[in-house]
Amino acid sequence: MAEEKEFVKELTSKSVDFSQWYVDVVRKAELADYTTIKGCMVIKPYGFALWENMRDALDRRIKATGHKNAYFPLFVPESLLRKEAEHVEGFAPEVAWVTHGGDDKLEERLAIRPTSEAVICSIYAKWIHSYRDLPVLINQWANVVRWEKVTRLFLRTTEFLWQEGHTCHRTEQEAEEETLKMLEVYREYMETELALPTVVGLKTESEKFAGALRTYTLEALMGDGKALQSGTSHNLGQHFARVFDIKYLDEDQQEKYVWQTSWGVSTRVVGAIIMAHGDDYGLQLPPRVAPIQAIIIPIFFGEGKEVIRNKCTEVEEKLRQAGYRVESDLREVYTPGWKFNLWELKGVPLRIEIGPRDIKQNRVVVVRRDTREKLSVPEDEITEKLQVLLTDYQNALLKRAQTFLRENTRSIDDYAEFKSIIEEKRGFIVSPWCGSAECESAIKEETKATIRCIPFGDEQDPQGKQCIRCSKPAKWRVYFARAY
Amino acid sequence: MAEEKEFVKELTSKSVDFSQWYVDVVRKAELADYTTIKGCMVIKPYGFALWENMRDALDRRIKATGHKNAYFPLFVPESLLRKEAEHVEGFAPEVAWVTHGGDDKLEERLAIRPTSEAVICSIYAKWIHSYRDLPVLINQWANVVRWEKVTRLFLRTTEFLWQEGHTCHRTEQEAEEETLKMLEVYREYMETELALPTVVGLKTESEKFAGALRTYTLEALMGDGKALQSGTSHNLGQHFARVFDIKYLDEDQQEKYVWQTSWGVSTRVVGAIIMAHGDDYGLQLPPRVAPIQAIIIPIFFGEGKEVIRNKCTEVEEKLRQAGYRVESDLREVYTPGWKFNLWELKGVPLRIEIGPRDIKQNRVVVVRRDTREKLSVPEDEITEKLQVLLTDYQNALLKRAQTFLRENTRSIDDYAEFKSIIEEKRGFIVSPWCGSAECESAIKEETKATIRCIPFGDEQDPQGKQCIRCSKPAKWRVYFARAY
Repeated sequence: MAEEKEFVKELTSKSVDFSQWYVDVVRKAELADYTTIKGCMVIKPYGFALWENMRDALDRRIKATGHKNAYFPLFVPESLLRKEAEHVEGFAPEVAWVTHGGDDKLEERLAIRPTSEAVICSIYAKWIHSYRDLPVLINQWANVVRWEKVTRLFLRTTEFLWQEGHTCHRTEQEAEEETLKMLEVYREYMETELALPTVVGLKTESEKFAGALRTYTLEALMGDGKALQSGTSHNLGQHFARVFDIKYLDEDQQEKYVWQTSWGVSTRVVGAIIMAHGDDYGLQLPPRVAPIQAIIIPIFFGEGKEVIRNKCTEVEEKLRQAGYRVESDLREVYTPGWKFNLWELKGVPLRIEIGPRDIKQNRVVVVRRDTREKLSVPEDEITEKLQVLLTDYQNALLKRAQTFLRENTRSIDDYAEFKSIIEEKRGFIVSPWCGSAECESAIKEETKATIRCIPFGDEQDPQGKQCIRCSKPAKWRVYFARAY
Repeated sequence: MAEEKEFVKELTSKSVDFSQWYVDVVRKAELADYTTIKGCMVIKPYGFALWENMRDALDRRIKATGHKNAYFPLFVPESLLRKEAEHVEGFAPEVAWVTHGGDDKLEERLAIRPTSEAVICSIYAKWIHSYRDLPVLINQWANVVRWEKVTRLFLRTTEFLWQEGHTCHRTEQEAEEETLKMLEVYREYMETELALPTVVGLKTESEKFAGALRTYTLEALMGDGKALQSGTSHNLGQHFARVFDIKYLDEDQQEKYVWQTSWGVSTRVVGAIIMAHGDDYGLQLPPRVAPIQAIIIPIFFGEGKEVIRNKCTEVEEKLRQAGYRVESDLREVYTPGWKFNLWELKGVPLRIEIGPRDIKQNRVVVVRRDTREKLSVPEDEITEKLQVLLTDYQNALLKRAQTFLRENTRSIDDYAEFKSIIEEKRGFIVSPWCGSAECESAIKEETKATIRCIPFGDEQDPQGKQCIRCSKPAKWRVYFARAY
């Protein structure tokens, strides 16, 4: 037991220092680590297996909605990046520039893509001629680079992995529908696969994507009450089409500019899973994307080690055949208690313990990572039981996160109260806002809270109230939070 | 019919200009295209779907042999790249250098990875402490950049996609076994999935990977008789371990350097599929990796368009449910003949024609892309029949490629004959060689043929013969070819 306590002790408590807890969990659970390369992380096998599952689940949805994957160049020539004025202004400060190829200085600098609108638009301009070529529905999975001053594992790294969809449409309406469709794909994906409830809505002018007409966002709430932007979907309007000259001949024989969208989700969302579900014992991974859904641990004592070992392997094999992601930890240098802590730290949803007594009774013990509930299950029912337990577990994680989100979303009309809540409790604050960038930036300065989004439908209605800061008539009710 | 001829006419004949035929096929089949970004291509959706299938089939094998995926930084600081002398000498001339982040000049230049040994070794040095940490069996799928002077779609591009395995072992023997195991994984993968037979063996000292102890290679033979290096597996010995200080404490309490391997296969192999299997009508894709295994084409005439259209969709749905990759081309602006040509060009293995007569008889017509054999199949047998046909097709492609390889591999002992064969027929020439770099480079200069590999086992035995060029006693029989 001394050993166990020590193990857990190494992990900073979540309530004591959330930020240090986060780094501890990422590193000790072996998801990722820092490297000597400025702002770049290495995603370790366990973290990458998680990302692969997350990626595949999203990729299926992207394909199911009619999109196809492709691959575009890593390099964006400076002249292309500079074409769209807002876009370059937004991204130029964080671009890594290639200036030499081998020993030769390049005639034109090449940006490592911070996002691919510029390079993809320059290519679409050659592909699209007629209305018959539309819509273009393409996605790419790629690495991008943004030269960040302050970096944090997964949340903000110089290089990160993501998918970026880039579509072209015939009409403004079709583009807006696509933008909202992908926002909903993301929302459903995060809820179903990652057990992450999100608040969705429109970004303000000052927070929108550089070059977009409108940016929609998904905002998740982390365990410390800070918001995390988890994905964005942009209606690009014709901003890029005009400067990159992406035109098509319409059925009416008129040349027209296309309407575009782009949308992306990145490895940042791994950080969201950690911070939304984790606890003082470490990670809690949603079963649908967990690299290991159940870990089998032999309880060796007395004789019959070989029998227990064989039983573990047999159960593992049976569960694998049934399609579960299962592993056994048969190492003898570690005690069962040490292993319990390790696999809890790594967020494996279920632990299966197999000891001599269980074998005699043809049973196994299953323990849930979240509730620590212990179940004795007949060995021949384990396959069916796992399905039920994993589904329950996934639902429980989501429900807990939904409750947390609800309990930490407060409707506030008074600025003094706003300030004290944001300081003491954080969470989302829904307040009336006049719509001016001045108030938005003053609130940010005074409270460190930013407008996360303008929600949809009735929720945005200020119901005649006054702006929380300037007391002028409010235009919307919006979500505020301190954010990552 | 005039239309059909025209369509095919646009494709350069393979025998007239192989190189132009290749570019025509890649572009017209919409696999990839050039961009305005120097040496970079865009992989279009159809080409990327092919790559995804190729990637997934290889990824399964890499995982089945105990390797895990991870992700390492894109950037290699110059000082790391310079650590291994041979390595930097080999790669520095083709490195793209990042010198600025935003507006700031970097203190140290960063190479975009041309390969990741340097960055990964610097990280492994921190991960590995004890013999218990070994073996490390990690793979990554990534983009890499090599500043090439002359580029060709898929075959040699500035940026390309690949997987690179990087492993660390306790003993020299274990590293050698891993190197050969992955070579065999590649060989079996290319044969089974891509219908590509390869010649395997050891690279000569002058052709080995910069920094390796030994490089093993897979060499495929293209339709024009030129060889294509399709994958390599390197035993790195302790070269990198020594300079990056990757040490472990062995069971005997001694600190020792690890033994390493690395191995890779890239998007280049897409080029191999095109050039090994394609013909004057376009691509011929192996069914196991083809993005579309069967294309359904309605034969509209007279009345009942709607009935035919519905039947196509019904058959498509049935085949999809059964796990086949199937699409229907229901467009009415194109004739069936035009579509036949299009989908032959795109290398779809099977074409399913559905017309009014077929519907009356509850049958469909299936046509093979390779033999053009036509079969009338009862509609309710289509699912089973497709399985048989696709398996046959895959086998036939492989068999044809194997025959081509055998018929174009010649054992030659006379240099004059060697020269005339390499000039007129190309293919592989197996000849005795003294083992000197001088003869190797003289042969290259005089014939443009390089040593592709030293084969394994009995095949390398020179049987007392003399070097084909200098007539000194031969050390080995080796494979020569002109190569891509």
